[in-house]
Amino acid sequence: MILHGYFRSTSSWRVRIVLALKGITVEQRAHHLRRGEHQRPDFLALNPQGQLPVLELDDGTVLTQSLAIAEYLDDLHPEPPLLPAAPVARAHARAIAQLIACDIHPVQNLRVLTRLRAMGHGDAEVKGWAADVIREGLDACETLLGRYEGPYCFGASPTLADAALIPQLANARRFGAEGDWPRIHAITALCADHPAFIAADASAQPDAE
Amino acid sequence: MILHGYFRSTSSWRVRIVLALKGITVEQRAHHLRRGEHQRPDFLALNPQGQLPVLELDDGTVLTQSLAIAEYLDDLHPEPPLLPAAPVARAHARAIAQLIACDIHPVQNLRVLTRLRAMGHGDAEVKGWAADVIREGLDACETLLGRYEGPYCFGASPTLADAALIPQLANARRFGAEGDWPRIHAITALCADHPAFIAADASAQPDAE
Repeated sequence: MILHGYFRSTSSWRVRIVLALKGITVEQRAHHLRRGEHQRPDFLALNPQGQLPVLELDDGTVLTQSLAIAEYLDDLHPEPPLLPAAPVARAHARAIAQLIACDIHPVQNLRVLTRLRAMGHGDAEVKGWAADVIREGLDACETLLGRYEGPYCFGASPTLADAALIPQLANARRFGAEGDWPRIHAITALCADHPAFIAADASAQPDAE
Repeated sequence: MILHGYFRSTSSWRVRIVLALKGITVEQRAHHLRRGEHQRPDFLALNPQGQLPVLELDDGTVLTQSLAIAEYLDDLHPEPPLLPAAPVARAHARAIAQLIACDIHPVQNLRVLTRLRAMGHGDAEVKGWAADVIREGLDACETLLGRYEGPYCFGASPTLADAALIPQLANARRFGAEGDWPRIHAITALCADHPAFIAADASAQPDAE
């Protein structure tokens, strides 16, 4: 399997965490977002969305969308499980991952910020947009996580929710988004010592700058 | 169970389709988005994101995020299945749903368009933003769907992908987003005759205007 990604792409990072949690080794192929490598014809032939990550299976099958890829890996390698067992807890874990993957990340990613710049907005406004979106999302995330038992997002081991949360926190730091998030910060501290999260970190990737 | 939604909210609409496909009856409670009813303290106490839909279970448990709610309903009522059986096909179906729920809808929803207006953009620019985002997303969706066998998004019956696609097409019409989408239009025509999609349509809801 080939994971097409980029060290700083938070959606690629989610998949790297899941791979590391499951102990699955893949070939990693980097596509430099700032240089527009995800918009080249050969990449668009793989994923017409022109977005990372893509998981290319050995038979050439192309999987897109980080959360769909994550659940595919969970279907294939059920241990350790990526989601809690009970239907309600599964729904909560998926909801936290989707809060981040739907309502935060796509509204503050490179594609949207580039569009804002093209509409005449300067650096401060563009970064302010990203920081607002991240802060509002993580504020809600903190409140929701307060309803569930820790120490990870859901219980004693990482789930899809933690795999989505940790990369988003890197973007929060990058854009200066801050809030009163004790539960989130406790999870971040815990994951900072977890081997899978250490291996998947942006700074640990071959294409890191 | 109570579904907190709004007739025109495409994410609420996805859940209505899934409920209708499964033959599950719930109480529906409408929250008028344009009047800001989703920002009232009593609704924020349910969902700190202040977003629709919310599924409130009989014991008071609150589920958020439409795709997580949809998979919860599928866990509880497995027939008819909401996803194909094979892991790769499941991943494809989830990816189509996520392309729409992550990369189209949150970037063109009321929250973002309101923010653009507050930044000084007029009606034409704001609607142009929404139309661009929808067109780009559905262009990619059409190409991806061309890889999979129909007549629905995935085979002979509707899945989570169709439940995400049909409401998004209503937003495409609303914002004047058009493209060369024969596969999408064939699916739309098919769903227009399907009882579950007819029952879940925005125009069929008690709060429709």
